[in-house]
Amino acid sequence: MPDKKAVILLSGGLDSATTLAIARSRGFRLYALTCFYGQRHKLEVEAAKKVADSIGVAEHRIINIDLAGFGGSALTDSAIQIPTDGAELDNPAKIPPTYVPARNTVFLSCALAWAEVLGAFDIFIGVNAADYSGYPDCRPGFIAAFQKTANLATAAAIQGKGQFRIHTPVINMTKAEIIRTGTKLGVDYSLTHSCYDPDFHGRSCGRCDSCRLRLKGFAEAGIKDPIEYRIANNE
Amino acid sequence: MPDKKAVILLSGGLDSATTLAIARSRGFRLYALTCFYGQRHKLEVEAAKKVADSIGVAEHRIINIDLAGFGGSALTDSAIQIPTDGAELDNPAKIPPTYVPARNTVFLSCALAWAEVLGAFDIFIGVNAADYSGYPDCRPGFIAAFQKTANLATAAAIQGKGQFRIHTPVINMTKAEIIRTGTKLGVDYSLTHSCYDPDFHGRSCGRCDSCRLRLKGFAEAGIKDPIEYRIANNE
Repeated sequence: MPDKKAVILLSGGLDSATTLAIARSRGFRLYALTCFYGQRHKLEVEAAKKVADSIGVAEHRIINIDLAGFGGSALTDSAIQIPTDGAELDNPAKIPPTYVPARNTVFLSCALAWAEVLGAFDIFIGVNAADYSGYPDCRPGFIAAFQKTANLATAAAIQGKGQFRIHTPVINMTKAEIIRTGTKLGVDYSLTHSCYDPDFHGRSCGRCDSCRLRLKGFAEAGIKDPIEYRIANNE
Repeated sequence: MPDKKAVILLSGGLDSATTLAIARSRGFRLYALTCFYGQRHKLEVEAAKKVADSIGVAEHRIINIDLAGFGGSALTDSAIQIPTDGAELDNPAKIPPTYVPARNTVFLSCALAWAEVLGAFDIFIGVNAADYSGYPDCRPGFIAAFQKTANLATAAAIQGKGQFRIHTPVINMTKAEIIRTGTKLGVDYSLTHSCYDPDFHGRSCGRCDSCRLRLKGFAEAGIKDPIEYRIANNE
């Protein structure tokens, strides 16, 4: 097993599964971190376990952080509707109601905490800016600012043991490129979960922004999406 | 009650209690946030509740984040000894074993998440650099970097609703100045808890770095510390 450790944020979706496979291909010893933050689509945590097992990690840690208690997002509060008409995707300047306040800042902070304890200086996050759905914490400027903060925040960096680097290998890829890259690296996308809507008992809704981006990506990549969708009608 | 909201990180120690009182004196409506991260000295969470009640807050939220699961600190892992000889304090360049990896980054991230949901742009944290005990995440450079990150991370900032500001009113005060300031503002220091050592059933050890800094501060301020200490011998 390689010596050089990396912490990889793993949600269970296709971007983070691909990011995990990329980290493996770069020769890192993999420490996968999944944050259960009270997301309604908690199926993705189960997906994260399967993906971690399938790709092969030194350790997979799941931690609880109650962002749902703060509210303010359709992903954590059933009173806020998950958009299903795809309109949010036509306006990349608009931030959709599925945005979770400060989520990636919290996730990266937890990854930083674990990385410092492990003696790792490489942190991977599967943010995707090319076809992102308006989330500010998926953009390169945010990632650069967090990396700078990490190198001021920690004893390991201050003492000169190393400098933290936040890797975002899929940030500029289209969803099709992500899927093609992951397929080459052996990612089993049947294990991943992308749907925001928790109401379909394991199947994906096919209508939320996350499903729409995923379906479009598989279509453009010319690869069949192996997961099960409910029929997108009024059932 | 004032309209302008602020989130204040409240540990239950004297720095954060004073910071809460300062935020009140500046006319903010107070939202106190306490993070239970698995610290062995969990008495400070009880202290935080009493301090929040005493000062008067619109809401006090306690969230769990399992930093203890990551380990790496004397404050979360009973296998790592808490220094009691004061030697760490003589060498401010040394980072003591009571450092918790990335703790303030995690705390500030959670405060940012709550602030964004509340529509607050002011976050207070009671970090103290003047007589800090070598913690990198108590320094002004870290705070400035986090503030910059916060303003790139969040929809509220990106959309121009406001700019987040991280307030550190006690960062350059000595412990004596903090105690004098809080005393003027009506802080009841008998409610606060500073001791790192969980073994004395509500009394403070008087020997750990946190007790030493506190006792020195009260002595220099010419004010009697109202909390109970065990006698510093081998009992």
